Formats: sequence, structure tokens, C-alpha cells
Amino acid sequence: MRCRFCRKEAFYRRSYEGVPLCKTCFLEDVEKRIRKTISRFDMLRFDDHIAVAVSGGKDSLTLLRVLRKTEKRFPKATLTAVTVDEGIRGYRAEAVKLARESCKELGVDHVVVSFRELFGKTLDQIVRSKKELSPCSYCGVLRRRAIHVAAKEAKANKIATAHNLDDEVQTILLNIFHGDAKRIARVEPVLVDPAGRFLQRVKPLCEIPEKEVALYAHLSGVRFQTCPCPYLETALRNDVREMLNRVEERHPGTKFTIFRSIERLRDSLKASLARVELRNCLRCGEPTTGSVCEVCKMLDKTIECPGT
Amino acid sequence: MRCRFCRKEAFYRRSYEGVPLCKTCFLEDVEKRIRKTISRFDMLRFDDHIAVAVSGGKDSLTLLRVLRKTEKRFPKATLTAVTVDEGIRGYRAEAVKLARESCKELGVDHVVVSFRELFGKTLDQIVRSKKELSPCSYCGVLRRRAIHVAAKEAKANKIATAHNLDDEVQTILLNIFHGDAKRIARVEPVLVDPAGRFLQRVKPLCEIPEKEVALYAHLSGVRFQTCPCPYLETALRNDVREMLNRVEERHPGTKFTIFRSIERLRDSLKASLARVELRNCLRCGEPTTGSVCEVCKMLDKTIECPGT
Repeated sequence: MRCRFCRKEAFYRRSYEGVPLCKTCFLEDVEKRIRKTISRFDMLRFDDHIAVAVSGGKDSLTLLRVLRKTEKRFPKATLTAVTVDEGIRGYRAEAVKLARESCKELGVDHVVVSFRELFGKTLDQIVRSKKELSPCSYCGVLRRRAIHVAAKEAKANKIATAHNLDDEVQTILLNIFHGDAKRIARVEPVLVDPAGRFLQRVKPLCEIPEKEVALYAHLSGVRFQTCPCPYLETALRNDVREMLNRVEERHPGTKFTIFRSIERLRDSLKASLARVELRNCLRCGEPTTGSVCEVCKMLDKTIECPGT
Repeated sequence: MRCRFCRKEAFYRRSYEGVPLCKTCFLEDVEKRIRKTISRFDMLRFDDHIAVAVSGGKDSLTLLRVLRKTEKRFPKATLTAVTVDEGIRGYRAEAVKLARESCKELGVDHVVVSFRELFGKTLDQIVRSKKELSPCSYCGVLRRRAIHVAAKEAKANKIATAHNLDDEVQTILLNIFHGDAKRIARVEPVLVDPAGRFLQRVKPLCEIPEKEVALYAHLSGVRFQTCPCPYLETALRNDVREMLNRVEERHPGTKFTIFRSIERLRDSLKASLARVELRNCLRCGEPTTGSVCEVCKMLDKTIECPGT
């Protein structure tokens, strides 16, 4: 099996295109595709200051590496890596260390923010004291806020997250399976708040299958955390992941088809979503749809919670 | 395990509700649910003449049985069973026989129309002479026309088909997996042509899981065809079916959630679908979006194809 581009020995066959690739061409091609996604969805500008959400896993460290390479071509662009330390004993410390090492190697500024410092308690403490929601629900809302706060403090104007094709397609199906089909309109490569109260969020890996992100990380020598979060929800998302992988195996390209399929729906769905009026949270001042934001509700305290 | 309704020995536990049921209560409950679907989607009127598409399988014979029971309460309503003989050697004859027996037992008028008589050739002949499309694609288009022609000839004003919950949910996901997400707007319990050129089509079983339809047929002594069509497509739909059954098993109620989820999307999706102008097919005179209808294109002949 020879590489389609350079005819050297291939090591991987991209099943959804039937294309064999050698290691060098694979790495180059993944980078090219990420840049194509960035330009197709108009994600980045030459003078952006991008806060990259870096957990220390394969996806975020790959994203950081590719954005760092790209940034070098744009002297006015800036990168800051943001790592959130949620306070998960026996898990997060290693990831923070790996993120720090990668940033040092790449020469990228690195900011670490912790739940404890921002919200007064660690995720472990929140999970122990509250039972209404799953750990992932608390973590998702609080981490999003933490990244946003850190990005604003670093004077970034954009946030890049490392959601890959599989993440996006899983979320689309999960929304349908959960009965929130209209929310699929919000699973999109670029999230903009027209009123400018939230920083724009972009997902440059959204058209790269998880498998190829993992392969890229592995081949380019990225050291990333492999053990899963102890709170990882194993329920429906895992089943959806498995089933998508099975369908993809038998019908290569299905994940891309679903992604494009929903792309075509998005505008009509968005048009039907009620226009949400945002106001400022009475406690922390951050934008919210109700009177008190989700973060403050979750923290359930009267002292001011961190806004910006 | 005792029946939730009558406390007799239960034989089945409806997992999506956690409700154990005895045989009698199960049968009654399925019938009640079908009537509820009929009324919820305003499917039938007291004086309808309904053409029931009866293939001879478990779904259509169950539908016929339940509609026959219901019809008895409405003296002005009429039922006609329509069976299409596509001309599939070694398969269709048994089904036609079973359909005929059921109709006789229930006292329902039975009309059998064949592809040979309507289109001049059997499905077997079409499949042998044409290779562009799958047998299911030819059969789907031609059978729909055949049922429509027979229903109009019988002076019916409505067509009832036996699509169950699983069929509908599979079709929804298949449309997404195939990249035709907008078509999910057309997977609906009632299909109406506002201009009245097509008879209204209704799906009274659309909220009954396939498993319960099979159980109903079995318990009520319906003799139905069990061997699958030799042309049955085994590709993507089968994978989707399997995966849905697996997810349903672990998360009972998922099929219903997907069904409801899409229900909530339908209106916004429909609004975005281009309004299709229908005109009369130049060959057969039936309504079509182009100049020649799908049926005539498939038959690919200049002699007139059957309209009404």
C-alpha cells in the first residue's frame, strides 16, 4: 500500500476516502484540513488573540500544536493556552502538568485557573455536596465560565475548543435522543453572541474524526493524558459513540454525512428558535436568560460569583 | 409479576414504562393506544372510506384487525384492504393468500392489484432489466402508485399504512445518515396534499413499537408472513435498526423520545422546505414535480402508464 501523495510506504488508509497515506503526508493533510475548516467557517482572523482551551488530552494538545504552527505565519496573532483545574483528585494534576509541558515546548503562554480559586470549591467538593445533577453537568457549566473568565483576563477575543467530528456528531444525535432536537441548531463550528457579551467560540477540529486526531497526536509525539476522567458519564453518550463507530465502520463517511446533513438544517432550525433576550445575572453580572445565571444557581451561594 | 391493570399473572413487561401486563390487558391497551394516535393526529373521520395497505405481514394484518374493530363502532365508515402483488417469485403468493384469508375472516373487502397488470411487468422483470437503482427503490415508488390507484378505484378517500414506531424512527435517522435531514419533515403520521391530488395517508401504528405489534399479532392469532422479502436491503437500515434496539434496551423509551423530538422540529423544517409546485405527468397524467413522474421514468416506456 503506497501513499496516495508521495508513493512512499503508507501506514494508514483513510477509509471514508479510500486513500492510503504515509506518516508525513498524513500529518500534513490533517493540518491542511484543519486550516480549511478554519477558513470555510471563517473562524480566525490574522490579528486574533485566541484563548485555546487545553485540558491536556489528545484533542486539545493537537489543536494547540496546529494553531501554534499556523500562528507563526501571522505575526499579529497571539495564542494563550487556558487550562482549567476543576479539582478532581488523582486525575487533573497530571493533565495540568502535560498541558504545561506542551505549552513550554511550543512557546505558548499558559494560564491555569482553578474552580477552587474562581468558585471557592473544587469539583470534588461540589459533587460531594450536591446530588441533583451529574458531575458532568456541573463541570460543563462551570468550566465554560472558567475558560471565559480566563480568556477575558488574558485579553483574548476568541476561544478555540478542541471538539472533533465525533464529539459534534455524538452531540447532535444525543440531542435528538434526549428529545432536545432543536438544540442541534446550536451544535455549530462557530458560536457567536451577536450582542458581543460572550467571546466568540470556534472549533477548528470539528471536521477531523477522533481517530485521526488521536493518530496525529501520537505521530507528532504529543504526550497527552490517556486515563479517563473518574466522573466520565458512561451512559447514553458511550452507546451513541459505539453505535456511530459501528455504522462508520460498515459505511465509511457516515459521520461526515451526518455533520453536513445537520449543517443544511441549521439555518431553518435557528430561525424557529425563540430569540433569547439576555440580561445580567443579579449575583455575578454575567449574561444570562433568567435573573440568576446557571453558575450562581449551581454554586448556590449569595456571595458574588466571578464575572468579569 | 402481576398485571398493572387487572392483577392477573403478567406475561410482558413494557420496559419503557415499567408496566407489567397480562395478555388481555396488553391487547386492549395496544388497541386503545392506536385509537389514541388516530385521535391525536386527527387521522380518521366517522364516515371515511379507508383503503388499508395490507402486505400480509404482521404490521398490516394487525392494523387491519384493529381498524376493523374500530370501524364497527362507526356505521358510516368503510374499509377496503388493498394488497399489491409486486410479482416476486416464491415470496408474494403466500402473503397474498394470508391477506385474503384475514380479510375473509374479518369480513373486509379485498382488492389485489399487481405490478404486471398495472405496469406491464413484475418486479422480478424490472429488477432483471434495470440495474441503476436497488429493488427496494423501484418497489417503493411503484407500490405507492399501485396502492393509490387501487384506493381511488375502490372510491376510498384515505389510505392507511402500517408503519410502526420503529419504522418511523429508523427512517428519521436514515434520512440524517444519508444527508437528507430535511426529509425528516416528511416522515409524519399524516401526509396531506393540500391541493387534494393525492389521497391523504395516515399511519395509525406510528406510536406502537415493532415488538408490540409483533406481540399483538401473535397473541391475537393473526397468521402473517414471516419470511423476509428476498430483495430486502440489508445495508444501512438494518444497522440502524440494530443500533436503535440496543440503545432502546439500555435506555428504554429512546424510540419514543426520538419520535417526539422530531415532532417538535417538523413545523420549522417544513417552513423551510421549498414549496413544491405539482403539475401533471406528460405521460400518465398523475401529479409530479417534473414533467414526467417517477413511475413513468422507472418504467421507461412511452405507452401510457396507469393514472386514475
